Amino acid sequence: MQTIEFWFDFSSAYGYFASLEIDSLARRCGRTVQWRPFMLGTAFRKTGVKGLSSTPLKGDYARRDWSRIARRHGYAFALPPFHPIVALPCSRAFYWIEERHPDAAAEYAKRVFHAHYVANLDLRINDAAAAVAEQLHGVDAVALREALDRQETKEKFAAISDSAVERGIFGSPFFLVDGEPFWGWDRMAQMEDWIRTGGW
Amino acid sequence: MQTIEFWFDFSSAYGYFASLEIDSLARRCGRTVQWRPFMLGTAFRKTGVKGLSSTPLKGDYARRDWSRIARRHGYAFALPPFHPIVALPCSRAFYWIEERHPDAAAEYAKRVFHAHYVANLDLRINDAAAAVAEQLHGVDAVALREALDRQETKEKFAAISDSAVERGIFGSPFFLVDGEPFWGWDRMAQMEDWIRTGGW
Repeated sequence: MQTIEFWFDFSSAYGYFASLEIDSLARRCGRTVQWRPFMLGTAFRKTGVKGLSSTPLKGDYARRDWSRIARRHGYAFALPPFHPIVALPCSRAFYWIEERHPDAAAEYAKRVFHAHYVANLDLRINDAAAAVAEQLHGVDAVALREALDRQETKEKFAAISDSAVERGIFGSPFFLVDGEPFWGWDRMAQMEDWIRTGGW
Repeated sequence: MQTIEFWFDFSSAYGYFASLEIDSLARRCGRTVQWRPFMLGTAFRKTGVKGLSSTPLKGDYARRDWSRIARRHGYAFALPPFHPIVALPCSRAFYWIEERHPDAAAEYAKRVFHAHYVANLDLRINDAAAAVAEQLHGVDAVALREALDRQETKEKFAAISDSAVERGIFGSPFFLVDGEPFWGWDRMAQMEDWIRTGGW
């Protein structure tokens, strides 16, 4: 089955909203989803863009927008008081899990988003990233916690982020469908239209 | 009748697409449209953001996106080779016309967008801004051309741009509906939903 590449940063609220919608979109289109966390900060270094929350005017707009999106769709949403963060630990954990338990990776990502945007878990902390993995069947959270301190775990994720940006991925969420890029939660309908019609 | 404030920069391709859709959206919602050109550059000075075309990765994405939007909706669209521009003359002309012929201002804006994005008229030129006005019934294009050189015409538009940014407007297109802000061509459906449901 053909796939949708779903790139996101765990600290991105629009990424969180997309994570709540991508599965049903993919199901409607007969596609699988490839979950792909990366570091938005890596893209920012290339684009020279700052994060939404640290951009005057845009930051205020985004906060208002996140709340109204959550209200409209009935999504649980509590912006962590320490937002935005550099979500390295859980992103590294994601790829460690994916390598060992490919079927558990998407579930881990969903639980991380939930833990952060509903329970306000601090994703900057290695212990927090490992704690979320404890909920997953068959994943050795202790081994994961140890791996998070290892250089190879860090380098693997850094390489994935670098290569994403090399491919032109610069925002969260960002989708690739048969090579066609779609940027933003608000472009998911356009992407679905593209898939269903075969492009235009 | 209640209104939709429609803020845009004549050099913005997403603003052009919005200009093709806003009238029918407003009609469906029983609203009027208040056309409001402003200088995106004024907002950029406050947000620290660069224009799309001069932002690495985003610029390439935007060009691809504009073409596919135009193809999907059947919009005539030819990105001028000199894009992006600082569209001062036609923006100043808009407000000069609006003051004297309020009913002709929206029509002028539409013709400017068309002249730029279909016929690639160079909007940086005062003569070009005046030439578009010649097509409008009752507008004295010669007097307009003279006004474009006057300091008061320039200051009036600068003041409007400044006050827009003061109100939190930072992108193009940008809409205000009873105080609620919506940014982006891709949020017009959300805005329509907001108006029809009375907000949420």
